[in-house]
Amino acid sequence: MPSPSPPLNEFELIARYFAPLAQGTPGAYGLLDDAAVLSPSSGNELVVKTDTIVAGIDFPPDTAPELIARKALRVNLSDLAAKGARPCAYLLDLVLPPAIDEAWVAAFAAGLSADQKEYGVSLIGGDMSSTSGPVVIAVSALGEAPVGRIIRRGGARAGDLVFVTGTIGDASLGLRVLQGALPTLEADSSAFLLERYRLPQPRVSLGPQLIGLATASIDVSDGLVADLHHLCSVSGLDAIVTAASVPLSAAARAVIDGGNGVLAEALTGGDDYELLFTAPRAVLDRLNELARAASVSITRIGQMTASSDPQKHRVLVLDADHRPIDLGSEGWKHWR
Amino acid sequence: MPSPSPPLNEFELIARYFAPLAQGTPGAYGLLDDAAVLSPSSGNELVVKTDTIVAGIDFPPDTAPELIARKALRVNLSDLAAKGARPCAYLLDLVLPPAIDEAWVAAFAAGLSADQKEYGVSLIGGDMSSTSGPVVIAVSALGEAPVGRIIRRGGARAGDLVFVTGTIGDASLGLRVLQGALPTLEADSSAFLLERYRLPQPRVSLGPQLIGLATASIDVSDGLVADLHHLCSVSGLDAIVTAASVPLSAAARAVIDGGNGVLAEALTGGDDYELLFTAPRAVLDRLNELARAASVSITRIGQMTASSDPQKHRVLVLDADHRPIDLGSEGWKHWR
Repeated sequence: MPSPSPPLNEFELIARYFAPLAQGTPGAYGLLDDAAVLSPSSGNELVVKTDTIVAGIDFPPDTAPELIARKALRVNLSDLAAKGARPCAYLLDLVLPPAIDEAWVAAFAAGLSADQKEYGVSLIGGDMSSTSGPVVIAVSALGEAPVGRIIRRGGARAGDLVFVTGTIGDASLGLRVLQGALPTLEADSSAFLLERYRLPQPRVSLGPQLIGLATASIDVSDGLVADLHHLCSVSGLDAIVTAASVPLSAAARAVIDGGNGVLAEALTGGDDYELLFTAPRAVLDRLNELARAASVSITRIGQMTASSDPQKHRVLVLDADHRPIDLGSEGWKHWR
Repeated sequence: MPSPSPPLNEFELIARYFAPLAQGTPGAYGLLDDAAVLSPSSGNELVVKTDTIVAGIDFPPDTAPELIARKALRVNLSDLAAKGARPCAYLLDLVLPPAIDEAWVAAFAAGLSADQKEYGVSLIGGDMSSTSGPVVIAVSALGEAPVGRIIRRGGARAGDLVFVTGTIGDASLGLRVLQGALPTLEADSSAFLLERYRLPQPRVSLGPQLIGLATASIDVSDGLVADLHHLCSVSGLDAIVTAASVPLSAAARAVIDGGNGVLAEALTGGDDYELLFTAPRAVLDRLNELARAASVSITRIGQMTASSDPQKHRVLVLDADHRPIDLGSEGWKHWR
């Protein structure tokens, strides 16, 4: 018996759904060639980043395709933002099981299209493959930044203050909502946290404005403490964070005040995609101005200090009585 | 019972096996940052290409990890070569099931290391993920070419001759060897064909030398006829190929002369990773010189002609009596 619909053809799908996403960029050649060309604008260099998301690991398999697409793109844009780079283009590798139908692909492309408009990027190349396993999406994002000016992980100095944008912990609590683990939470709070998990808001506009102010930067994807630890390791420093100063949304506050012992989870949970950066005290006023102008909160949460042990850089999180909090695990290890 | 070895840790694996692959490139920051930076050298632009290979689709799951790594890289280098671009760097997305152990990762990285030396490229970024499905490897290759000079698919003109490097059909026959479908073939021939399937030889040195000579170019990955069809479609032309002129290796010739009806398979089989290009008759001498200097055969196999039907560009393959050969399927459709 013939199947009700013919199998998807890679070339047709690309022509129908993905070539339109490449129209904005001459060097993409409408996805009709083997490769794309691009050049950084004068005085800039290219900044590249790749990240993969896998169904069942990074998102529930039944997630709406629009959201999967946007998340796949946004996690990469977040890394570029953390480096102070402006995104311009991306490559897409899409690996799909046979159960995926054309409607799924159409919705996925619609999600990309929406984010292309939002962030001013366009598709310049890609590949489609089939698999007997789960959906895999690899995005390689390309951006640009002034030559030699990207904000590295390793530039922090002892005495620098530690800052974070937005609010922390919402995404990991949103995953708990999705898993049905917070049944007594108000509907509004649940919806807010869920949305924060489902659709990260990379700080694409703010990131480039931190060049010249921030000494080191990373995005919060593995979890606040784990990512600060990465920054400490490369900078060769320790960090002290005051737990009470970590910015929480009203919804996260409601969960934590509900006494579920989830403060540690908020501090170590992944997927926030906020910017975590260090800067000298001298630029505090300029950061405050920047935050106001960008309508993004920038909160001081701690300070960088010389390392007590040059072999092992530490992140110390202090409670209201200045005692270290035992967080158990530092956060997401990716590899599970 | 605890498992005999602890689960692989992404960060440790990167530090141990992948960071050494990034040492040659300052902008990769030893894979210790969120992104890498790079710039095309003066007068050049960047050329980017991404391609994914999936276990069980693009290679047998039990293939040696070194070979998988090299194939993943080489299929991308082949695309850059077809555009006349010199490769310089690549990003790697590695998606691995739990059955993969550290020895596999070590061997995979060793394969990359060998090819980095062979082709003068280096790793500048990547991501590792876990999956419940098969191994997936996405590579995004970056190269450079003089601004505005890459060899497009669409530049062929009526009257241009059609050329191909190396020999055609070996890889698809090699797959038949692997599948045990050619049991009577001599051991030497079997080994040769198998090697051609397992380890493509992208024309990385030759490609850039075709700039200024070739009017259009593509690499043979989907199959000679299918890829020539792609070139015809974008160029808006037809092509006529003389089957007898298509260069075959002695091993492929042995299979075909063995009367297995495999000429069509050689003409339509994928994975050759040779260059297929068009050029005007006026540069024939220069192409011959180039082939001699590069020790790579360049064979004239046909000619581009005006399209008989502007809606449907055709590739006509003629037998010794100038009659069109019915090839059945044109080649690999990727999406299966």
